[in-house]
Amino acid sequence: MGSGEGTERHRHHQQACSIARAVEVIGDRWTILVLRDAFKGIRRFDDFRRDLDIARPVLADRLKKLVEHGVLQKRLYQERPRRYEYRLTPMGRELSPILVALMRWGDHHLAGEEGPPTVLTHDCGQELRQGFYCPACRQVFTPDEIRSRPGPGAAANQAAPTNGATRARAS
Amino acid sequence: MGSGEGTERHRHHQQACSIARAVEVIGDRWTILVLRDAFKGIRRFDDFRRDLDIARPVLADRLKKLVEHGVLQKRLYQERPRRYEYRLTPMGRELSPILVALMRWGDHHLAGEEGPPTVLTHDCGQELRQGFYCPACRQVFTPDEIRSRPGPGAAANQAAPTNGATRARAS
Repeated sequence: MGSGEGTERHRHHQQACSIARAVEVIGDRWTILVLRDAFKGIRRFDDFRRDLDIARPVLADRLKKLVEHGVLQKRLYQERPRRYEYRLTPMGRELSPILVALMRWGDHHLAGEEGPPTVLTHDCGQELRQGFYCPACRQVFTPDEIRSRPGPGAAANQAAPTNGATRARAS
Repeated sequence: MGSGEGTERHRHHQQACSIARAVEVIGDRWTILVLRDAFKGIRRFDDFRRDLDIARPVLADRLKKLVEHGVLQKRLYQERPRRYEYRLTPMGRELSPILVALMRWGDHHLAGEEGPPTVLTHDCGQELRQGFYCPACRQVFTPDEIRSRPGPGAAANQAAPTNGATRARAS
């Protein structure tokens, strides 16, 4: 990374934007893969290291940050020698829609001819869909039907509030 | 980034895992914020630069990679001087569930007392929910009801296929 990026990155956090705030916490390749492994049930440093083939200092850094942000909880599981494990907190478990969305996008666009490596299903065995749901209309709807409006946390001094993270005006 | 990370990162791509493949393309803070802006309707280099307060070379790098990956399309909109704009491709527009999931996680966990900066709604004005949906049972369900199985693209030589990106065994 260029030396300027650290400074720039700091500014994201000051934006009144939940996407910018979220990427401050998890917008990093290794962090996302550590989280994927945590969802797979991996809890111990050496197991993460082996599964990811990741350098120790890089893994230690990502785990430390995830603990600081409240996404993982560090727990002693052995006294001699002292060993810790890392478990998803409730806040961490609520990341599942992000990981599922990444997985399904990868399935659709990057899996190639051989197809998805893994299929996610409902309990019943049917392949799951991830969608947008309206509790009033009681229907699943497409991204084209998403609208946005400023919320209570919109910064008063922001001329162009972050809106419509989903309004593709690209066509 | 440490010098080792580039090498390590390359290996993600070889894993039979759609999450790993997806983060190769968009698992970067700036990339996600560029995409957020593209969904907001921003198309031109200088508009991205102003909105993100990002260094020119960093922005140029991220836009170039997104074009190479097929997420953005670069189009000439002015001949003299030659000027280009960047629009989401259909593949790019299908990133919306990822951005919505990031936004809602940020809303729930990082917005603080003032609340969400932006509210996403259905056409009808009701706040949207994002969920997992079973087309067989015709119901929206929770992450606890997600199961996984190896798909057609599971690597035969992979002892532990990436499964259950959503099975939180953390409790």
